[in-house]
Amino acid sequence: MASAPPMRRTSSGQFPLLREHSLVPIGMATILPEAARHVRHLEAELLAYFNRFGYDEIILPTFEYLDVLAPGLEPMLLENSYKIVDRTTGRILLLRPDVTAQIARTVAMGMVGTHFPLRLSYRASVFRHEPEHVGRDREIFQIGAELIGADDPSADSEIIMLMIECLRQVGLRSFKISLGHVGFFKGLLIRAGLSPEGQRRAEQAAVRKDVPKLGEILSQERVTKRATHGILEALELCGQADVLSKGRALAKGEKPLVQALDRLASVYRLLCATGFQESVLLDLGEFRGFDYYDGIVFDVFTDGIGVEIGGGGRYDHLIGRFGRNLPSTGFALSVDRLFRGLNLSEKTMSVGPEVLIVAPLGLSARLVSVAQRLRRAGIRTVQRPVNPSGRDLIGVAVKAGLAADIDTIVVVSVDNPTSDQVIVLHQGDYRRIAGSTGRAHIRKRTVSIEDLIASLRVDLGGAV
Amino acid sequence: MASAPPMRRTSSGQFPLLREHSLVPIGMATILPEAARHVRHLEAELLAYFNRFGYDEIILPTFEYLDVLAPGLEPMLLENSYKIVDRTTGRILLLRPDVTAQIARTVAMGMVGTHFPLRLSYRASVFRHEPEHVGRDREIFQIGAELIGADDPSADSEIIMLMIECLRQVGLRSFKISLGHVGFFKGLLIRAGLSPEGQRRAEQAAVRKDVPKLGEILSQERVTKRATHGILEALELCGQADVLSKGRALAKGEKPLVQALDRLASVYRLLCATGFQESVLLDLGEFRGFDYYDGIVFDVFTDGIGVEIGGGGRYDHLIGRFGRNLPSTGFALSVDRLFRGLNLSEKTMSVGPEVLIVAPLGLSARLVSVAQRLRRAGIRTVQRPVNPSGRDLIGVAVKAGLAADIDTIVVVSVDNPTSDQVIVLHQGDYRRIAGSTGRAHIRKRTVSIEDLIASLRVDLGGAV
Repeated sequence: MASAPPMRRTSSGQFPLLREHSLVPIGMATILPEAARHVRHLEAELLAYFNRFGYDEIILPTFEYLDVLAPGLEPMLLENSYKIVDRTTGRILLLRPDVTAQIARTVAMGMVGTHFPLRLSYRASVFRHEPEHVGRDREIFQIGAELIGADDPSADSEIIMLMIECLRQVGLRSFKISLGHVGFFKGLLIRAGLSPEGQRRAEQAAVRKDVPKLGEILSQERVTKRATHGILEALELCGQADVLSKGRALAKGEKPLVQALDRLASVYRLLCATGFQESVLLDLGEFRGFDYYDGIVFDVFTDGIGVEIGGGGRYDHLIGRFGRNLPSTGFALSVDRLFRGLNLSEKTMSVGPEVLIVAPLGLSARLVSVAQRLRRAGIRTVQRPVNPSGRDLIGVAVKAGLAADIDTIVVVSVDNPTSDQVIVLHQGDYRRIAGSTGRAHIRKRTVSIEDLIASLRVDLGGAV
Repeated sequence: MASAPPMRRTSSGQFPLLREHSLVPIGMATILPEAARHVRHLEAELLAYFNRFGYDEIILPTFEYLDVLAPGLEPMLLENSYKIVDRTTGRILLLRPDVTAQIARTVAMGMVGTHFPLRLSYRASVFRHEPEHVGRDREIFQIGAELIGADDPSADSEIIMLMIECLRQVGLRSFKISLGHVGFFKGLLIRAGLSPEGQRRAEQAAVRKDVPKLGEILSQERVTKRATHGILEALELCGQADVLSKGRALAKGEKPLVQALDRLASVYRLLCATGFQESVLLDLGEFRGFDYYDGIVFDVFTDGIGVEIGGGGRYDHLIGRFGRNLPSTGFALSVDRLFRGLNLSEKTMSVGPEVLIVAPLGLSARLVSVAQRLRRAGIRTVQRPVNPSGRDLIGVAVKAGLAADIDTIVVVSVDNPTSDQVIVLHQGDYRRIAGSTGRAHIRKRTVSIEDLIASLRVDLGGAV
């Protein structure tokens, strides 16, 4: 569903992506430190928010036995999974292509206890084969939540609400949830008398909102003009509450269609009553690309990202395929797409107050002890014992600071009046000096370690 | 090198592990919520500590091309890697069996910039085929750090120091670093005139500290009694500074051996001078199981875990195998073994103050708004709209609270004097009631939401 965040250019201005094409498998991104900081922060924020709602993280194995997981996977997904023959047992191992199926398997086995509803969350990579030219990713980093063993509309609205609040929490400004019910569209197809194969193809076209293709399939299936018109109209019925009344007109009192609309109406009402109306659009053609969804479904879209950044829905019969019927609902977000939706590659994220601490090799013990005091105070401290030729410790320290691109340089020197004092140089100062010819003007301050810590914590207070 | 934390028993007292043998691939553990909480906390603490030392996390792809990564992997590891034929390119994909080799490949390609030394950290699963009966894990969760482009002894001591401080930080009480230099033992073998194949086998025996096997190999290789004696003695030379003088006696002035001892002495001196002596044992037979180590090496052991919980060392020529010579050092910790060393499965970890908030369906909007206020105050809040038959809302709430095993139940009811007030029930009270016959004695308190938040934050202050 997603991909890992894009790689950063190297500082030399090259595009490593170009060289990567031959050296690193396509669709498997390397996330360099700057982007990784954002990704991990995003991940921690989402998981912490899930926790506030009572969702507990579960960590599942990367491999599954194909025969065990297969009931939870539709044929296409199974086909696009990476498979390995297990040397010991001769059975086929699968790299998980989907986490929801895995959670369903785990819950059905009774491993997660017997108290329902269960609230679970996860962060995991899933793996899917994609032809290289489509540009889709093959290792997809997802974060999601599942509400297991609850079948009322309030469970649907809880999951949607959780997703909306999470997206707001991480700072996504403008997004829309496209909310539907697979039973409505499926009901229309069944009423129109499509063959099972025709229905499957029609559903696939609906997932892609491919109206011409859908029309073609309906014509091949000899669906009446009137029914065809209704189906094509439904696919594009999208908006606020009026969508429901238009849907009711198409349903013509047919029970499965009416039931789907009733459920959709309940969930929509709950979301509106609790202040989430502005984020939700009803969409009677909403159709997720997984065959296990069998009720309310939704996708979330944001500006500038042409595909959904996540979505989910109700899967009342998925866990039953593993031997235990438990009505459930859940969602997943693509970390990569969310990363792009938030424009994180353009934002820098501070590592907090940072110093480079330099000392001659003979003072290593003092260097380490000062570094430890700084670190304990929450200051990121890179240590660097040096071997200065002659007495030019300051010159060596300035050079090291420039190379490491660090704001503040702290020098531990035998020249300091007491062992509790250090010399401090600031980036602005030494940068200017490095640009000029001499270094006679380096502004050194001798301060106590306590004062140094206090000034760094004040300077960059919030980040400590 | 490690495995994922063990699975928790289900509350029904079954051992799901037994059923697991057929349904989930061996050596691929499921980490249930209680253990997952510890694992993620451990992970976050370690990574935050790495950051304090200036190490930045990098996220690398799960797959690599075999032909690209192979130069960094020794034959055994390559043999035990999971391989898949890439459908698009026909090339062989490898599930990474080792992160250090992957980082070496990435750095050599110039993707991580050009400023050295580079400080990188990672958290990642590695995958290795293991025969099922050995009980070793096949998906191994590691956390590690690499210091790239620094060749002085202070770089070795920085990495070791970082590992020691991290282990202290996460609360590991008693552990020892076994510190050696591969050059010493290799030097002895070379001086003894072993064949290349004999040397390889002797090194493998040394990794396992298999003295009888080593003796056998030396005898097959017709090594002199005197040299054999020296080699076997070296394998067991372990202790404080006196180990170095005993080593010097064995070295007999031979340059590669003396150089190895000199380096080891420098690093040991630095660690002692900076207060890490008590955690370190010199071990002239120390030998890591990776052929890329070519200098200082170390393992860390703790009570009750029969194998090392982590280790690392210097790999000056590994990055060079990918086309760029950069002397480097690093270490990795096994999250599973650390988990076991810390006895985390026996410790409970609070999720912080937690409430179950219950309201009749008709009051869903108020339920959500109260829940949001609680969550924003840092209180984990599970929401539960109910449909009470008759007017027995409190009875339904008590039942829901018992089922969910939650301390505090908050009831939103139309009976409350104002919409800012809620009814609060406490676990101790309603547990007692559920155990007795009647429910006439349920102690209900009606409080304002503000007071509720204040009391929850006071009760469990530290965790918020």
